[in-house]
Amino acid sequence: MTKERLYIFDTTLRDGAQTAGIEFSVEDKISICRLLEDLGVDYIEGGYPGANPVDTEFFETKRTRRAKFTAFGMTKRAGRSAANDPGVQGLINSQAEAVCFVAKAWDHQITTALEISLEDNLDSLRDSVAATVAADKEALIDCEHFFDGFKANPDYALSCVRAALDAGARWVVLCDTNGGTMPSEVSDIVARVLTVAPGDHLGIHAHDDTGQAVANTLAAVQAGVRQVQGTLNGIGERCGNANLITLIPTLALKPVFADRFDTGISADSLSRLTQFSRAFDDRLNRAPLKQSPYVGASAFATKAGIHASALLKDFSSYEHVPPESVGNERSIMVSQQAGKSNLLTALARHGIELAKDDPRLEKLLATVKERESRGYSYDGADASFAVLAHEVLGTLPSYFDVDTYRASVERRHNAQGEEITVTEAVVKIRVEGELLMSVAEGNGPVNALDLALRKDLGKYSSRIEDLELVDFKVRILDGGTGAVTRVLVESRDGTGERWYTIGVSPNIIDASFEALYESITYKLLKTEAL
Amino acid sequence: MTKERLYIFDTTLRDGAQTAGIEFSVEDKISICRLLEDLGVDYIEGGYPGANPVDTEFFETKRTRRAKFTAFGMTKRAGRSAANDPGVQGLINSQAEAVCFVAKAWDHQITTALEISLEDNLDSLRDSVAATVAADKEALIDCEHFFDGFKANPDYALSCVRAALDAGARWVVLCDTNGGTMPSEVSDIVARVLTVAPGDHLGIHAHDDTGQAVANTLAAVQAGVRQVQGTLNGIGERCGNANLITLIPTLALKPVFADRFDTGISADSLSRLTQFSRAFDDRLNRAPLKQSPYVGASAFATKAGIHASALLKDFSSYEHVPPESVGNERSIMVSQQAGKSNLLTALARHGIELAKDDPRLEKLLATVKERESRGYSYDGADASFAVLAHEVLGTLPSYFDVDTYRASVERRHNAQGEEITVTEAVVKIRVEGELLMSVAEGNGPVNALDLALRKDLGKYSSRIEDLELVDFKVRILDGGTGAVTRVLVESRDGTGERWYTIGVSPNIIDASFEALYESITYKLLKTEAL
Repeated sequence: MTKERLYIFDTTLRDGAQTAGIEFSVEDKISICRLLEDLGVDYIEGGYPGANPVDTEFFETKRTRRAKFTAFGMTKRAGRSAANDPGVQGLINSQAEAVCFVAKAWDHQITTALEISLEDNLDSLRDSVAATVAADKEALIDCEHFFDGFKANPDYALSCVRAALDAGARWVVLCDTNGGTMPSEVSDIVARVLTVAPGDHLGIHAHDDTGQAVANTLAAVQAGVRQVQGTLNGIGERCGNANLITLIPTLALKPVFADRFDTGISADSLSRLTQFSRAFDDRLNRAPLKQSPYVGASAFATKAGIHASALLKDFSSYEHVPPESVGNERSIMVSQQAGKSNLLTALARHGIELAKDDPRLEKLLATVKERESRGYSYDGADASFAVLAHEVLGTLPSYFDVDTYRASVERRHNAQGEEITVTEAVVKIRVEGELLMSVAEGNGPVNALDLALRKDLGKYSSRIEDLELVDFKVRILDGGTGAVTRVLVESRDGTGERWYTIGVSPNIIDASFEALYESITYKLLKTEAL
Repeated sequence: MTKERLYIFDTTLRDGAQTAGIEFSVEDKISICRLLEDLGVDYIEGGYPGANPVDTEFFETKRTRRAKFTAFGMTKRAGRSAANDPGVQGLINSQAEAVCFVAKAWDHQITTALEISLEDNLDSLRDSVAATVAADKEALIDCEHFFDGFKANPDYALSCVRAALDAGARWVVLCDTNGGTMPSEVSDIVARVLTVAPGDHLGIHAHDDTGQAVANTLAAVQAGVRQVQGTLNGIGERCGNANLITLIPTLALKPVFADRFDTGISADSLSRLTQFSRAFDDRLNRAPLKQSPYVGASAFATKAGIHASALLKDFSSYEHVPPESVGNERSIMVSQQAGKSNLLTALARHGIELAKDDPRLEKLLATVKERESRGYSYDGADASFAVLAHEVLGTLPSYFDVDTYRASVERRHNAQGEEITVTEAVVKIRVEGELLMSVAEGNGPVNALDLALRKDLGKYSSRIEDLELVDFKVRILDGGTGAVTRVLVESRDGTGERWYTIGVSPNIIDASFEALYESITYKLLKTEAL
């Protein structure tokens, strides 16, 4: 049986940008767009060109290869034509392939907030869609407040749907804008809308204000919609949008959906879902939620309780899907066994082959566990894991020793009475017994230490010439006895490879130095064979 | 019309204790029990007496006044009677008023995990319930894996329900143990169970592994169950249990439920829901989730975007329930797209009343936009916004000036040859012309600067005594000309208020100092009137 196509529409870069505390730069948008393309969504709504400089710049270039590059915006204003509306023209003239117009479908809102007639609203909708289609772009309509509007005046809400489709819109998206609709209401209303809009023309846009954005989306799919809108990790205004990272595996793995629908997300992408989710949180510098369905660190974790022993007998009974199907891992807090096989997999990734009964494996496992209990996390710091593994296995060359380092930052007034900040670092290392001293100024203590540390590595200097520090992230962890700082450094070299190293200490400078030191060590390790 | 009673069963202290990273002491349990009594739930499941010393001690005293004090445990083992089973006797002899037995209802699990016959399983269930009822306690049965069991063998699953009720159980709770069941399946299966168990004898226990614990619970209620199990803030094994803090307001405020059911939770409790939720997180020493439905700090927050101006016209359209109904607050954030009306609302929140045509408003707006373009973000740093507003409006008292500061971190070997790190900060400030110099050591440069800065504020010292730095977060932003560092500091004082301040600079130390400085200024501002 051929499956029906279900389309995934991502609005991370548009509705997700409404999240409190999130502000995307153009660089952020480009990077997240690449992630979404890897994931394989059908539509990427990149923002609202014309509304702010970031979105306008983002839409100056077509940013997608596979997904439809979609702009969001308002329908034309009442009293002018779409051809004379600068907002609509801005959308049509952008590099977007599709335009998603937001339109009101709740009579009360049209007359009180927009202060226009119900007929003018239909006219704006029709004219904007028609102008978009005439410009050879796909048109979509987000019907704002659709469910509240339908409850108040079903005939008018339905007339908005029909007007959009008649004018040539590919999709009409039913939005639960304030997030208060119940799944049973979504089912009933979608069924009634389908009577005037048969086929695959309806979408759903749900918010999580009652904790049911995912359930509302799935209820809509079961009732007949064929486009699903949501965001990565459920970011979005107020309580967030429907979480695509939760929806995708449910649609792909639960028979009630998987037997019937094809989402276009490949099995390979699905198996990297945990990685996508965490990479996105990294970009936002947020700690991933441990309890997140499918991808959270605790999603397949069982405490030594009533379930653990049964779990060891029969995983399938206690896991609703296999953790590896979404790139996550089982973790049983009583078992060391799970750890060992994961470790072997991780070692193999770095070209280190060990026998399952090699006693050094036990030692490495104990070291990793001990370090993780102190705040290290090797999940996101693969290069540090490689360095640690070589160290514990006794295969790490002795490149150089650090004698001392010092960083200082001073804010004072200069001779002209201006406020200035002077940052300086001194690093003293030994390469084969020879003391090498370097000093550097930087725009911050970590930058200064990085410059000083790499200034003179003696005979190794040429091997780190193309090493570049791309990013560093800082997180404060509540350790048992007090706060510790975890620093994650991202590095890159001329081959294009990026790697991550980690440092942990109560002192941010010590933690940063550790991560910088490990990045250089990793670079030396990877050039060892050359 | 009289409403039907819906019973709330809290398992925070039992299933919630399975959460990774959560370990309750007896003191914790006593305190959380008190909170649950204030909230007004019907059942408090306190743990498993006999399974560990904490739970055993907790059940030596009856800990509730109003709610039914409930113990959890296993049914009797096969091959002995309940009277001769020390586990069952321990439950019956505890101070619990009700006992909730976990029993398997999935044939496959009984024969493979328990390795007993299906008939023996029914016998354990019947005998354990009968012994409990004979001891004048209420008996409940948690049917583990009920939905998976029903799908595999509906007749056997139903025979477990009947056996429990025939033996005198008050409730049979249908558990979605691995959390993989869809709401539509829950509805169908509950309807079929009701045919053998009519009336108010069925409960629902859902997990959030597909993000639908709340939806599954509500679907079960709509299908006919009359007891709802869940936890505070949705803690629990893996992805957590159904979140009572989300369920309770939906049941109490959404007409589809509120018109039909009475949950026993008073309107007064409901109006303190946000407070209960945050108090619970405080007890666990966790930061409350901003996106939590109803009670999160962002649950009623709107960024100045397409919705803000409409929101100001008509709150009811953009809020699915009034924030005050659950003790939460509306917040309209200041951000890049800020307009004058948002700014006025934000100012009013800080007790600053300005006329709409006050020329200083224009100046403040320009300042906010200019600073946001440099990397500041005021939607997450309300206290910095307040300080900035007072500064621009000319109402900021001149508390103190910073002359210079210096922070240094040095890693070296001490006289014993051990590696040590010494971190020191010097801060020189002027209060009413008098120079005050302070020096402090810290476990990092920011900590040292914080300590030195707060060490001596002259006549203001007493006003910042209860100020405490709770957290600081660092993010590197890609600015136009180069990377800048954004530091967000969270502070708290004796009143329990938490506030956020921001600092931005290419230098992490300068950015941190700015945020620390603004936190102190905010604290001085808020104590100004006292």
